[in-house]
Amino acid sequence: MAKVKVGVAGYGVIGQRLADGVVRQEDMELVGIADVAPTLSIRALKERGMPYDLYLVDESRKEQFEELGIPVSGTFEDLLDKVDIILDASPGGVGAKNKELYEAKGVKAIFQGGEKNSVADVFFHGYANYEKGLNQNYLKLTSCNTTGLIRAVDCLDRAYGIERVAITIIRRVADPGDYHRGLTNALQIDKAPNHQAVDLMTIMPHINATGILVHTPVTHGHIITVVATPRKKISKEEVLNAFRTHDRIRVVRIADGFLGNASLFRYARDLGNPRGDMYEIAVWEESIVESGNDIMFAINIPQESVVIPETMDAIRAAMEMQTNGAEGVAITNKYLGMGKWK
Amino acid sequence: MAKVKVGVAGYGVIGQRLADGVVRQEDMELVGIADVAPTLSIRALKERGMPYDLYLVDESRKEQFEELGIPVSGTFEDLLDKVDIILDASPGGVGAKNKELYEAKGVKAIFQGGEKNSVADVFFHGYANYEKGLNQNYLKLTSCNTTGLIRAVDCLDRAYGIERVAITIIRRVADPGDYHRGLTNALQIDKAPNHQAVDLMTIMPHINATGILVHTPVTHGHIITVVATPRKKISKEEVLNAFRTHDRIRVVRIADGFLGNASLFRYARDLGNPRGDMYEIAVWEESIVESGNDIMFAINIPQESVVIPETMDAIRAAMEMQTNGAEGVAITNKYLGMGKWK
Amino acid sequence: MAKVKVGVAGYGVIGQRLADGVVRQEDMELVGIADVAPTLSIRALKERGMPYDLYLVDESRKEQFEELGIPVSGTFEDLLDKVDIILDASPGGVGAKNKELYEAKGVKAIFQGGEKNSVADVFFHGYANYEKGLNQNYLKLTSCNTTGLIRAVDCLDRAYGIERVAITIIRRVADPGDYHRGLTNALQIDKAPNHQAVDLMTIMPHINATGILVHTPVTHGHIITVVATPRKKISKEEVLNAFRTHDRIRVVRIADGFLGNASLFRYARDLGNPRGDMYEIAVWEESIVESGNDIMFAINIPQESVVIPETMDAIRAAMEMQTNGAEGVAITNKYLGMGKWK
Amino acid sequence: MAKVKVGVAGYGVIGQRLADGVVRQEDMELVGIADVAPTLSIRALKERGMPYDLYLVDESRKEQFEELGIPVSGTFEDLLDKVDIILDASPGGVGAKNKELYEAKGVKAIFQGGEKNSVADVFFHGYANYEKGLNQNYLKLTSCNTTGLIRAVDCLDRAYGIERVAITIIRRVADPGDYHRGLTNALQIDKAPNHQAVDLMTIMPHINATGILVHTPVTHGHIITVVATPRKKISKEEVLNAFRTHDRIRVVRIADGFLGNASLFRYARDLGNPRGDMYEIAVWEESIVESGNDIMFAINIPQESVVIPETMDAIRAAMEMQTNGAEGVAITNKYLGMGKWK
Repeated sequence: MAKVKVGVAGYGVIGQRLADGVVRQEDMELVGIADVAPTLSIRALKERGMPYDLYLVDESRKEQFEELGIPVSGTFEDLLDKVDIILDASPGGVGAKNKELYEAKGVKAIFQGGEKNSVADVFFHGYANYEKGLNQNYLKLTSCNTTGLIRAVDCLDRAYGIERVAITIIRRVADPGDYHRGLTNALQIDKAPNHQAVDLMTIMPHINATGILVHTPVTHGHIITVVATPRKKISKEEVLNAFRTHDRIRVVRIADGFLGNASLFRYARDLGNPRGDMYEIAVWEESIVESGNDIMFAINIPQESVVIPETMDAIRAAMEMQTNGAEGVAITNKYLGMGKWK
Repeated sequence: MAKVKVGVAGYGVIGQRLADGVVRQEDMELVGIADVAPTLSIRALKERGMPYDLYLVDESRKEQFEELGIPVSGTFEDLLDKVDIILDASPGGVGAKNKELYEAKGVKAIFQGGEKNSVADVFFHGYANYEKGLNQNYLKLTSCNTTGLIRAVDCLDRAYGIERVAITIIRRVADPGDYHRGLTNALQIDKAPNHQAVDLMTIMPHINATGILVHTPVTHGHIITVVATPRKKISKEEVLNAFRTHDRIRVVRIADGFLGNASLFRYARDLGNPRGDMYEIAVWEESIVESGNDIMFAINIPQESVVIPETMDAIRAAMEMQTNGAEGVAITNKYLGMGKWK
Repeated sequence: MAKVKVGVAGYGVIGQRLADGVVRQEDMELVGIADVAPTLSIRALKERGMPYDLYLVDESRKEQFEELGIPVSGTFEDLLDKVDIILDASPGGVGAKNKELYEAKGVKAIFQGGEKNSVADVFFHGYANYEKGLNQNYLKLTSCNTTGLIRAVDCLDRAYGIERVAITIIRRVADPGDYHRGLTNALQIDKAPNHQAVDLMTIMPHINATGILVHTPVTHGHIITVVATPRKKISKEEVLNAFRTHDRIRVVRIADGFLGNASLFRYARDLGNPRGDMYEIAVWEESIVESGNDIMFAINIPQESVVIPETMDAIRAAMEMQTNGAEGVAITNKYLGMGKWK
Repeated sequence: MAKVKVGVAGYGVIGQRLADGVVRQEDMELVGIADVAPTLSIRALKERGMPYDLYLVDESRKEQFEELGIPVSGTFEDLLDKVDIILDASPGGVGAKNKELYEAKGVKAIFQGGEKNSVADVFFHGYANYEKGLNQNYLKLTSCNTTGLIRAVDCLDRAYGIERVAITIIRRVADPGDYHRGLTNALQIDKAPNHQAVDLMTIMPHINATGILVHTPVTHGHIITVVATPRKKISKEEVLNAFRTHDRIRVVRIADGFLGNASLFRYARDLGNPRGDMYEIAVWEESIVESGNDIMFAINIPQESVVIPETMDAIRAAMEMQTNGAEGVAITNKYLGMGKWK
């Protein structure tokens, strides 16, 4: 079977990681990436010897790239002519504009969480609603927090049935290297309920969800505490058993040295993962406690890379590479090496 | 009636504020404060012209104080000879040692949250168990987080009945001016359940409590999210009504500019409060959401000053200045000017 | 002699402190303050019982203020009709627009560092060029960093003669309570030379100055290191002697507990200063080292309040309350209680 | 020629990177690494499939490792029997104790900056005093800040002659993943002169150096400003020319997006460097300014990895693999791929 031809629009924090993720999928081919300006990430691509072909969104800047010695393979439209599907990781709102081009070129597209839901036919999560994405033209991924949160809630829901969740998101406010946003010595609270709880209900309409979000001045991963109400009482051990079988969830222990979000970032660096990235969310074993019939636990969301696996799933669904969700996510996991740590 | 004579042991973050609080109680007299070394706080006391008499824990250092021009009024034992009750705000663990001295001198004492529960006859909170403190010799206050948390939970419990709470503490890791502890670009998680939930159950045994605590690199106040299960469903409006009538709880709004913990610190500074302190906890109106029959909300705990009112209550209980809790806290509130903002 | 009538435009971080500063000047009268919206600072003013009269920049919002129970004394123009001089502490750029109004009303004005130099007749510093401000209509103060830096450099220049300075500004990135700007886990560098060095040369044209500025994610004061080239070699002891005689400079010691910028903030809070403010810059005694014929040292700039004394000086100069600089600053110092700690 | 056999003692932040660095040297062989406990880094090594053999410092813990499925190749002494030279990256002070073992085994050793100078025969820097390390048994590397600082100063010194430097170190306070140290919303100042200036003079005795160090709450690299006095005036362009020819110095531009220390960390991640490490220091082109005859500039020190190249140099010197410094560092650079970006 011919490989599915994939392009990436926007080579920023998410776009870079999407490109890397596609390259690891043996049944896909990364045709190239598109961007606007010679950002640091594009300069790094050049220093790496241009492993990915670069297409220019704004052709008038071609000269600027050439002066910097950065080879250009064509225009964004040229890229669209060569691909089956485009992963749109451009800044929030730009994707909606790009969609007109995608429609004109008859190219499918996967949008990221920064776009409005209306940009897509389906609001997608690989585990929670894979089948809804089958053969659709435009999918939108859940945001980083929602993607990780749904992984955990869906995992327990499949195993035991979940009726309700009340979440507290302790949010990192910037990524490493960000200067355009930040927070200094302050916790900032958003109007409740947060959009992640609302989004979860869109994807999993049988669950009631609400929550509070607090921004914190850190860069290495969100922590979410979840109070989940199961259909019938479950024990901490049952919760652990479910999480331990999931290929995109790591159960970690404070006692082993996983003291917080920065430990997971460091661990991923020590693993030699490109960019120190980690695709899995983590659950702290010592955080799991029972509260009456409810179960409470804390998860860590590596915001820069958590959506990569589910985006690969989305390609599989939209292109009908696998028509069964369990099969689709399993192949993504195999190519990304997920679950190998067990 | 003669004023109750009060001393303060340890003139640090809490001790200073206790001294200020006692001075504002018209039925109490601050005899003096005791400390060990010429810390910045003691140097500031001197620069202020010694509004409080200073007694020395370690008499051998008297010369050092005199060289700095800091007048000394006697030894710690001299102070104990003059007081009815001592507020022990010395570093955690030191209070337990001091207790021997208090026993020998026949002086009552109020310990702070850093001491073990066993140091005291009663683990005390002004609103939740005032009567248990009556005529006791040794009381221990709840810690800053627990004190504020119990205020909120007790408030709803009195109004509607609360059965269960699941809390997430987003903890400030240091006070302004601290260098001996800190956290840089990391969220750190503790083994669950956190001690504040356990402590709440000690004070309010009819409530089931658990929770998760996450340390964050900020200095201006803890934020706690609470998922509370009432006896029967209550609305957001009912919750607001209860909080609005409480003299130690401020209901604030994001829409008015209270964007997070640092806004409350700034507001207290703008009020001209000494040290920019605030005795009240705050509840964000926009944080209150319903989750099934549960109610969820977020509170802010000003860690440096929140325990001052409840410590004043403890003096009232231990000295039987008021034998009724409602009366006791009301007099504390009057002298501290609480509730005047309404 | 009639008191000089002063108004304050903009009741934010600086405006509040200017108002407080004017109130302390026994030969001035604070007529009132003007602002646009019911900010937290205005709400705090109301909670304090309106010690200062409030005038509205935008009369159409009067109803909003009245609904909040905040009394309004008139319009901004009404305020201008009553004052001799206005302290403009509105956001950067707004002052230039306000100037038209000041000209129309024939009111003198002092602008803050956020405005362009062209807004004023003179770029002013109380110690370095007081006489240039005499009888001028429009003065602009140096920014917080420049104000503190010039204090230190001028102090040494008067005593020993300074030819050249190379400075490194380690800048706080936000004030406590700021959410609109911040930095998270990053040091950010600006193009050299920084504007503070350039501004210093405008005020002190006989000195050659350059420097590098690095933003850091903290809120409690800038630290500046200065490498100063004196006319002839001076010793550490001579430097200390000069600083010790200055009423707006505190010499502090790490050994005493002044470990960094946050210690100074804490000390000011412990002193009971309103808002925990400090008017003085600090020099760390242990930071002073000799480098060949140069002298190197580090100072701390309390960014929220450092410009208050020099702004009072500016009123004195513009209104010719004192025609001699030494006399002018001495009276400001007396009313602000500066130098009393010695 | 037989490869030089190298071991690494201590597999922490530095030890891991030393092991990686040795593996890249084609004329060296990494025999194995030694550590005490199953830290996160050791667990990551296991998850990576044990690319490096592990030796146990404390044999009694062998069972613990085996239960975790971590294969152990022998004891620390076994490792020492197999190597020519050991890179000691154990916690500060432990290296001095280990030295007895090295002496007993007749193994050469390179210590890191955390040890006292007395532990070694020579205090070493690859560029500044390579020849002093020739055939020595015990070398100690300069610390991360000093290593990077000397690179820059030595570069200018060779080109133009440097007489004196006055430095300001804006120090990161912790590494990513650290919880045992940190600083929250504070800048902390150390007694001057800082040890880095003193250390520079030990290595480069013909230069007079002093400086001030300020700790800041960030994790991604120190920034040092240097005021350097050359033998005769040099221009900014001359400074740039010297830096641009150095294989361990990158000249970067704010205009290109290198806004601060976090940009360099992000760039190294985008490059796909293992762990997001960077061996080079950076100089900001826009930071270079002239101050009279002095030159001022700012450099960035990637504290986790900057000492790796100079440690490889130290092996070359101690083992007399190259007897000429220029040749030694050139071979290190070749194997580490340094200078390829030009």
